[in-house]
Amino acid sequence: MWHVNLISKAFLFVVFYCVLLSDVRSQSRTDLGIPDIPGYKTIKGDFHMHTVFSDGKVWPTTRVEEAWREGLDVIAITDHIEYRPFIKEGDHNIAYDLAKPTADRLGIMLIKGSEITRREMPPGHLNAIFLTDANELEKDDWRDALRAARDQGAFIFWNHPGWSRQQKDTTLWWDEHSWMLENNLMHGIEVASGLDQAYYPEAHIWALEKGLTMMGTTDIHNPIGMDYNFAMGEKRAMTLIFAKEFTESALRDALFAKRTVACYQDNFYGNQEYLEALFKASLQIQEVHKRGNRFSVKVYNPTSIPIKILKAPGNEDKDFFRWLTIAPRAYDNFTIVAPEGATDDFVDVKWIIENYKVSPGKSLPVIMRLEAKP
Amino acid sequence: MWHVNLISKAFLFVVFYCVLLSDVRSQSRTDLGIPDIPGYKTIKGDFHMHTVFSDGKVWPTTRVEEAWREGLDVIAITDHIEYRPFIKEGDHNIAYDLAKPTADRLGIMLIKGSEITRREMPPGHLNAIFLTDANELEKDDWRDALRAARDQGAFIFWNHPGWSRQQKDTTLWWDEHSWMLENNLMHGIEVASGLDQAYYPEAHIWALEKGLTMMGTTDIHNPIGMDYNFAMGEKRAMTLIFAKEFTESALRDALFAKRTVACYQDNFYGNQEYLEALFKASLQIQEVHKRGNRFSVKVYNPTSIPIKILKAPGNEDKDFFRWLTIAPRAYDNFTIVAPEGATDDFVDVKWIIENYKVSPGKSLPVIMRLEAKP
Amino acid sequence: MWHVNLISKAFLFVVFYCVLLSDVRSQSRTDLGIPDIPGYKTIKGDFHMHTVFSDGKVWPTTRVEEAWREGLDVIAITDHIEYRPFIKEGDHNIAYDLAKPTADRLGIMLIKGSEITRREMPPGHLNAIFLTDANELEKDDWRDALRAARDQGAFIFWNHPGWSRQQKDTTLWWDEHSWMLENNLMHGIEVASGLDQAYYPEAHIWALEKGLTMMGTTDIHNPIGMDYNFAMGEKRAMTLIFAKEFTESALRDALFAKRTVACYQDNFYGNQEYLEALFKASLQIQEVHKRGNRFSVKVYNPTSIPIKILKAPGNEDKDFFRWLTIAPRAYDNFTIVAPEGATDDFVDVKWIIENYKVSPGKSLPVIMRLEAKP
Amino acid sequence: MWHVNLISKAFLFVVFYCVLLSDVRSQSRTDLGIPDIPGYKTIKGDFHMHTVFSDGKVWPTTRVEEAWREGLDVIAITDHIEYRPFIKEGDHNIAYDLAKPTADRLGIMLIKGSEITRREMPPGHLNAIFLTDANELEKDDWRDALRAARDQGAFIFWNHPGWSRQQKDTTLWWDEHSWMLENNLMHGIEVASGLDQAYYPEAHIWALEKGLTMMGTTDIHNPIGMDYNFAMGEKRAMTLIFAKEFTESALRDALFAKRTVACYQDNFYGNQEYLEALFKASLQIQEVHKRGNRFSVKVYNPTSIPIKILKAPGNEDKDFFRWLTIAPRAYDNFTIVAPEGATDDFVDVKWIIENYKVSPGKSLPVIMRLEAKP
Repeated sequence: MWHVNLISKAFLFVVFYCVLLSDVRSQSRTDLGIPDIPGYKTIKGDFHMHTVFSDGKVWPTTRVEEAWREGLDVIAITDHIEYRPFIKEGDHNIAYDLAKPTADRLGIMLIKGSEITRREMPPGHLNAIFLTDANELEKDDWRDALRAARDQGAFIFWNHPGWSRQQKDTTLWWDEHSWMLENNLMHGIEVASGLDQAYYPEAHIWALEKGLTMMGTTDIHNPIGMDYNFAMGEKRAMTLIFAKEFTESALRDALFAKRTVACYQDNFYGNQEYLEALFKASLQIQEVHKRGNRFSVKVYNPTSIPIKILKAPGNEDKDFFRWLTIAPRAYDNFTIVAPEGATDDFVDVKWIIENYKVSPGKSLPVIMRLEAKP
Repeated sequence: MWHVNLISKAFLFVVFYCVLLSDVRSQSRTDLGIPDIPGYKTIKGDFHMHTVFSDGKVWPTTRVEEAWREGLDVIAITDHIEYRPFIKEGDHNIAYDLAKPTADRLGIMLIKGSEITRREMPPGHLNAIFLTDANELEKDDWRDALRAARDQGAFIFWNHPGWSRQQKDTTLWWDEHSWMLENNLMHGIEVASGLDQAYYPEAHIWALEKGLTMMGTTDIHNPIGMDYNFAMGEKRAMTLIFAKEFTESALRDALFAKRTVACYQDNFYGNQEYLEALFKASLQIQEVHKRGNRFSVKVYNPTSIPIKILKAPGNEDKDFFRWLTIAPRAYDNFTIVAPEGATDDFVDVKWIIENYKVSPGKSLPVIMRLEAKP
Repeated sequence: MWHVNLISKAFLFVVFYCVLLSDVRSQSRTDLGIPDIPGYKTIKGDFHMHTVFSDGKVWPTTRVEEAWREGLDVIAITDHIEYRPFIKEGDHNIAYDLAKPTADRLGIMLIKGSEITRREMPPGHLNAIFLTDANELEKDDWRDALRAARDQGAFIFWNHPGWSRQQKDTTLWWDEHSWMLENNLMHGIEVASGLDQAYYPEAHIWALEKGLTMMGTTDIHNPIGMDYNFAMGEKRAMTLIFAKEFTESALRDALFAKRTVACYQDNFYGNQEYLEALFKASLQIQEVHKRGNRFSVKVYNPTSIPIKILKAPGNEDKDFFRWLTIAPRAYDNFTIVAPEGATDDFVDVKWIIENYKVSPGKSLPVIMRLEAKP
Repeated sequence: MWHVNLISKAFLFVVFYCVLLSDVRSQSRTDLGIPDIPGYKTIKGDFHMHTVFSDGKVWPTTRVEEAWREGLDVIAITDHIEYRPFIKEGDHNIAYDLAKPTADRLGIMLIKGSEITRREMPPGHLNAIFLTDANELEKDDWRDALRAARDQGAFIFWNHPGWSRQQKDTTLWWDEHSWMLENNLMHGIEVASGLDQAYYPEAHIWALEKGLTMMGTTDIHNPIGMDYNFAMGEKRAMTLIFAKEFTESALRDALFAKRTVACYQDNFYGNQEYLEALFKASLQIQEVHKRGNRFSVKVYNPTSIPIKILKAPGNEDKDFFRWLTIAPRAYDNFTIVAPEGATDDFVDVKWIIENYKVSPGKSLPVIMRLEAKP
């Protein structure tokens, strides 16, 4: 028998050992620079990842250290309940239990979760998070597993709904998913999951139409640095959650209230309200000077993600850029030429924020008032 | 005749043109994270660089933009007076005049300078900065050029004193350099200049013995990104100046007062006083917890340069690391095991800071008191 | 007067000087890994760039060194004839003359060119390359300038046809461009130019409809490393030319024969014939094993640009990936599951190569026969 | 009970699963560019690393994939026999058995090994590789464990002999190590192990004096990308083995015959014979032209490691660089000025290759004959 208690004791010994030796490398945490929005804290999370306790390649503590380094605030380890090729038997809470001390030390919020796994679609794979005991989810009928999760107060979401392996040529919504929705057994859906081609436009539409929370996750199995070339600018997918405060309970409320934006590579996916709030909190207007009919504007992008602006229709009386990309943590300058003789100390411009996606193929429209400072 | 006034008008037109178009890329400035020290502002400068107005490959404004991007506060463009292969005739103040508007816009302090250039050693090359009119330095006799610089109140320093081309096999001090020193015609010396193998140990010794200000410079000719692989962690050499305030006059005072540290790759070169102040301002002790005779310490390195600590002799009663490197902008943890039964709430450790060089081959010794917080 | 002959002599002196000293940094050349196609050499070029002899920020030799480092085979320096804010007077062939010795030393083919520059559209800016004397292009009427270029046998192309500054809200084709076409005064068009948002879909359509050669250029003004973050994977735009041999004359023939593909970031733009040839030369099928009805395939992408494959309609009887991205210089494996009982030693699959664009919004379709090796 | 056979079946299932899906990222292998030397193949290996089957954080297959990506040819996984905090019971050959299919698929040579682990010094930790059954090494007395390894024909080496935790202030050789040497129970020693400050000068001396094979290893516990910033140029330590052919048996012969060089960051550590052979195979003299008494030389460094050359004493009659660093995969040019009137078509120069260390503080001296080609 493979004993949890043996591991735990050994683990404490390791912790002691490492701290004494200090031959480990020093670590740095990325600051993603993503701002809060009015009324809410912006929590950055990833709720889909694996360890050696299902088919992942790393020890649970590694998932916490990766998350800390990459600037996340919260994670859930979600090993498969039904598919454990590496370490076959044992308690389904083990990865959580092993990772918790490291999470506490580094200040990462760790949520208990599991992946309910059926090879074929429907229902495919679903994650349940905020569990109290993952062992209760080991059921022959997936419906029973979902019910067990719901009875623990879990937030449940549909994983990689367009995964090639399960949705051969087309991303379909099945009757079973309607059934889940009707029975309060599905609350969210992965709009983006993984790295390549991992945005699911159908999921984006379903989230908007059916009232599902939009999730962005990595579903990482390897050490994350093997799949993502961070040095080349690749970014792990994540979910931004707008929570009343930085607590597990406020996080859970926000997820059920659908206050999220999915973030994947350089794009944000969400509904218009939160995307607009996020954009306006992200772009800093640092200076606006007016001389004659010309407004000179200096802006700053404090985030780790570019801001891509297009001129929208309806600016015919003004002359300015047709497109402008403000790189991460970069300054930029531009000029708005208002009509000759304009006397206002401000100018309103209509922009489309290309990498903020309000629905498939549709980017966020905003009207910005740029006010000159005397 | 190549007319300055033509250039100036055209230049204004370009500025106008660019700002309107905003098709230029947005820019970001590196934060080097180097702290002030008690009583002084730490100003980061490079006082040796070239443009197309001598044998450099870039337009003067580019030097300012490079400096801004790489986190410097002050530069001097120091084109050769006597060696202008690219643009042969003209005013020696031109590079300064062309670069000044960009420097003002970006908040870079621009100091007027020139390089007095004799191909052979002695005297080799010398930089004069804080000039009022560089044209006065065009003299047949280099002694007259130095006198003209001194009469303008210039700070003068000896460039790349160990340059292979001028010091064939050995880095020598010549009678002419003694003469300069006696006549107040040399105030500083480059301890490090350029990129590869560009630390001059003899210059470090001479600076200490003869009271010369230690300088670190790039002597850059190419676009800087062609010579330095910043993405791979290469760093441009620079001089840290400890000035009473952030003004040109305070900067000049600090240089004459020898309040500098030369910075080259991952090393700092200076005298013990300033190196110790810089180290103590750089290493942040974030937490110290005591349990029994064990002190658990959490530290942070806010700078862009690693901190490399060795255990010094004299710690025989304590058990801790033999070496510890704290990476740039990284956290680290270590444990000091004090003697059994130790009752003090603090422990004193003796360290050697390997990459802070007080003289060739000798690193900075420090005694650190680590105090537990209740 | 600013004398070319003075520069030239000085320049030789610099070359001598540098070679002796060897304090310059060693240099490496990127291998882009782009293959030849059947019947043609693939030449990699950039035909639009500036130096201090118009409004660029670097000395001409720097453009050659940049091109060598970044793996190009051929460049044209194309300073503005009519807009020279930095160095006002002088011969329009000077940048070419100064850069030629460096080009010869490094094996870069250097083509003489100029940019015919009118601030307003029409006609906007046009590049003429393969000039014999650029001075002949200094004319009051742009029509005369184009005629002078044509009379020298120049290949002429329309620059950044959708540039915001000249095409305020819409990218328009003007009567003047029809006139040029009718009078053999325009042979190509920039389909992509610059870095951000620099693909012009209208130009792609016009190239296909009106028989213009598709060009990809940088139009670089700064030192290129200031505008492109190569370490983060950004790539300079370029034109791939399919030439009978590696000579200036074969290059010119290929440009007039429209045998090009424009390359911009991770995308190729061209016509179907050349894109298909380039794709088939780029994707290496290294192994195909058949077991039962399963084909296991190992592929390699030898190029510096990803290959992005989508499953096309018409593969309903087979089971394989819906998308697959093969990273630069990377291996990948996949399995094609043919219908049960399939007896052929090969399988035909229909793919869409997402980043090979045959027209705006339309990617290259290919049928691949994967043959098992015994 | 944690069943190996269960794992194995599950593992096959995973392999099947992954190959079908191909949603994994494509992979690329680094070419280290290190050449063979006359008479021998140069095999690149790392013989010290951990997995979850002792105190490492990754699954065994990950170690193989990391090695393949980073250009190694051979590895040994060497989990601790006596210290298994994560997975406590089970067969000591398991990591090897699990990793072997991946090693075979990727062409990595996998050697069976274990780490004989005693917390205190002496004897500290020792690695035994080329084992047939690691279970035989589980003994109360470390002497018995070493004898069991020797009886299987193992090559045994002393790990991190200067590790702070075990050698408090000084790196000492203990009587027990003499006993091992006398009893054919120790054949090699880690001259470099790990990343920071991990070169052990005492071990370098002992290897030379006592005839031990010099080893460079990582002793990696984390996913390697968490400890090494490869994008910033950090390199994993490794051992270069000069073997008659690329087989396990020739590799073992070479290790017992002490034909190795330890490679750590930018330095090579070895004896003079192999370092000289490696240097001469690494530096490519591409062109030598003679004009008068000047030899113009073009060189290329095909490896991923810089070559750092210093002028040695004894070149007084010639004029050339005092130092020259040839960057990885880079070209460089320099000039040797021979005495006036020199008539030979060659010139002999004396260099010191700074980063090839023949003993602590002493770099490789070479005499190079540079022959002009007509």
